[in-house]
Amino acid sequence: MNMDCIGDWVRTHSIDKVSQEMDMQSVTLFGWVQEIRNLGGIRFIILQDSTGTIQITILKKHVAPEILQNSNFLQKRFSIAVKGTVKKTNMTTRGIEIIPTQIKLLNTAIEQLPIDITGKTPANIEARLDARALDLTTEKTLAVFKIQHTALQAIRDFLFEKGYLEVHTPRIIGSATEGGAELFNVKYFDQTAYLAQSPQLYKEQLTMSLEKVFEVGPFFRAEESHTRRHLSEFTSIDIEQAFANADDVMTLLEQVIHYVFVTVKEKCANELCTLKYNFETPQLPFKRLTYTEVLNSLKERGVDIPWGEDISTEAFRELGKLYPFFYFVTDWPSKAKTFYIKPRKDNPEICEGFDLMWRYIELVSGGTRIEHKDQLIDRMQEKGLNPESFKYHLQTFDWGMPPHAGWAIGLERLTMILTGRKNIREVTLYPRDRVRLLP
Amino acid sequence: MNMDCIGDWVRTHSIDKVSQEMDMQSVTLFGWVQEIRNLGGIRFIILQDSTGTIQITILKKHVAPEILQNSNFLQKRFSIAVKGTVKKTNMTTRGIEIIPTQIKLLNTAIEQLPIDITGKTPANIEARLDARALDLTTEKTLAVFKIQHTALQAIRDFLFEKGYLEVHTPRIIGSATEGGAELFNVKYFDQTAYLAQSPQLYKEQLTMSLEKVFEVGPFFRAEESHTRRHLSEFTSIDIEQAFANADDVMTLLEQVIHYVFVTVKEKCANELCTLKYNFETPQLPFKRLTYTEVLNSLKERGVDIPWGEDISTEAFRELGKLYPFFYFVTDWPSKAKTFYIKPRKDNPEICEGFDLMWRYIELVSGGTRIEHKDQLIDRMQEKGLNPESFKYHLQTFDWGMPPHAGWAIGLERLTMILTGRKNIREVTLYPRDRVRLLP
Repeated sequence: MNMDCIGDWVRTHSIDKVSQEMDMQSVTLFGWVQEIRNLGGIRFIILQDSTGTIQITILKKHVAPEILQNSNFLQKRFSIAVKGTVKKTNMTTRGIEIIPTQIKLLNTAIEQLPIDITGKTPANIEARLDARALDLTTEKTLAVFKIQHTALQAIRDFLFEKGYLEVHTPRIIGSATEGGAELFNVKYFDQTAYLAQSPQLYKEQLTMSLEKVFEVGPFFRAEESHTRRHLSEFTSIDIEQAFANADDVMTLLEQVIHYVFVTVKEKCANELCTLKYNFETPQLPFKRLTYTEVLNSLKERGVDIPWGEDISTEAFRELGKLYPFFYFVTDWPSKAKTFYIKPRKDNPEICEGFDLMWRYIELVSGGTRIEHKDQLIDRMQEKGLNPESFKYHLQTFDWGMPPHAGWAIGLERLTMILTGRKNIREVTLYPRDRVRLLP
Repeated sequence: MNMDCIGDWVRTHSIDKVSQEMDMQSVTLFGWVQEIRNLGGIRFIILQDSTGTIQITILKKHVAPEILQNSNFLQKRFSIAVKGTVKKTNMTTRGIEIIPTQIKLLNTAIEQLPIDITGKTPANIEARLDARALDLTTEKTLAVFKIQHTALQAIRDFLFEKGYLEVHTPRIIGSATEGGAELFNVKYFDQTAYLAQSPQLYKEQLTMSLEKVFEVGPFFRAEESHTRRHLSEFTSIDIEQAFANADDVMTLLEQVIHYVFVTVKEKCANELCTLKYNFETPQLPFKRLTYTEVLNSLKERGVDIPWGEDISTEAFRELGKLYPFFYFVTDWPSKAKTFYIKPRKDNPEICEGFDLMWRYIELVSGGTRIEHKDQLIDRMQEKGLNPESFKYHLQTFDWGMPPHAGWAIGLERLTMILTGRKNIREVTLYPRDRVRLLP
């Protein structure tokens, strides 16, 4: 079987752009064979590209012999280029088909594909991830990532509009950013360094100059337990803002989330339809519950959490039944939050940290940060951290640290919520625990 | 000295937005003290925020005693909030000043700052990087990062418009992506893994489904030698496209670069002025030189490179004198390029890889990729790589790999070119070799 080159062929349309109005028009389409059906004197090829599918109809009696011959060898996932004519028909759901005048074979594929690319026989998640590059060609998986792309673009647009500057902070760092949590070690020439869990300290420092910053990128958490909501490598959307407190950035966050939902609903109607998923645009403002209110609600439902303790996933699952949409949890005990979250002036037992929950999923964490060096050192010591190992960060507090606040959204969790997926690995192109898939 | 809270004060304007048209208007401004000058009965405070500076004029006889008293304690880099009235004047370059009615002190700073924040006494790069968070408050450094932000936003806008989807591929990978170059080791639970040098293999695989993808993010190269153009952690802008060859993506690249230059020139006129730097918008198409033409040009200038060898930085410096703007170098010897670059069909000694040069700086690398598994295996073996260690990547070639091409721009190098900076560490917020600056 001879392979052709694209040569001087120029794609005239992506498949979604071919419409009934183009009846009798010539087109050049590129894509993959998704299905082939032979029905006596007719052969149907379903041609797929990243935008959709279209039927190529070969009437065996009426086509040039070389088309018929070329199409004899076609199989699923062969890359092809098709020149042909658009024809109106009531035999396809889209009301159009392509009558080919020339077909080029650009690349082949094996006969026994590991998963069914039409999605008619759904594969389980493990099989799908084992063949992720192929799984990504299915309509549903494509829809997930188009929605993710649209959501992220909406967030960026919103933040650009509000004057936030996009920044790029280091991933290889000297020591732990947040103290407690697990870090991956990196051999950095003759030193040991770590992979950043967040841009937290850097973004705080940047409020001293750029004032309003955001960063989108991969961060790393060495947590062995693979739950359905955790990834050891995840994409974080971080903002930090000078001269702002928790209330300011909560208001911003609500607006961002609202804008994302409105935009995805508008731009991704087809993708949501493909996923058979829909959502209501959240109403503003989001419900605000204090930590103490949450404890009381849980107590009424038989879940007893001593004041000051963290709220477990199981407890949040209970709470999610009461509040089945977005809600903030505010006024956390200072001891339940990390060292840089600011305790309240009137009651230092309580801090200005908050979480934004969606049902039982913690989507965002944020708060007012401590801007005074002495207070930050005190809090580090309370948390059992050694201020000496933070000396380069602490030093920047001598140079004019403004009051500031910020938050971090997990992009994968946001995608789960927007697409109705229950397993976080479904919304990651190549989950880290599948790294063996690739060199 | 008592510190105030922002309380119910709301910033009405960023400093750049205060204009002569606002004469007599009340404003609330937030920022930092950049300078204080006492001239007999008058005290001038230069207030700085991320957008610029403005003069606060305190007429000692005419202000409320608490303003005078508060302002007695002010020092450089103190965070303050100012309520006051805009007044036209011909005593300042901007033609305006602020007559304060109330000043809040939000945070302090030490008296002896490590560098001069007005930029009047320029510090050397080492001192600047040692105090990077403070260095970022100087007008020139701010200008560099505003230009970088604008350039990246322009690239994203352009690619979005052309239908590219933004993706996020893993950074922790199982083995070397490109064979030869140096990798950082990561301890991944009980395994050894590596930090990705590029999204190369992932982005190629994604052309099978998403067709046109791009990624912006940190990648890692364990090169000890710190030159003025290399970073061990850098920001790469990668694209990859199905059904395209080198020519297609070179045309796209020219358009992207052109759009970036036009956009930065238009949106960042003030920043370029601050940097005392300017550039001409490059003319399209960019000059295209073949590798062999480059060798001939160099030979005429006394630099002799045997055909097939790589071109050294010194040789490119010579070439940059002949071609002092953008130019492509095409038709490289296959053996001088990595294994996945496609050899030409008519002459396999030459490949479809290209570089985009700016004078002597290699800004972009790209090319047509090999889409046939057998040919890719052959090339791996020629390069001394073991196909077995790429088996998960090679397997995806069984599932319908389209012809494809792509490139990668180094964001920091692009920023150097756009801002006229000569040292790459100047265009990185926190260069990796300064990681000690931060935990």
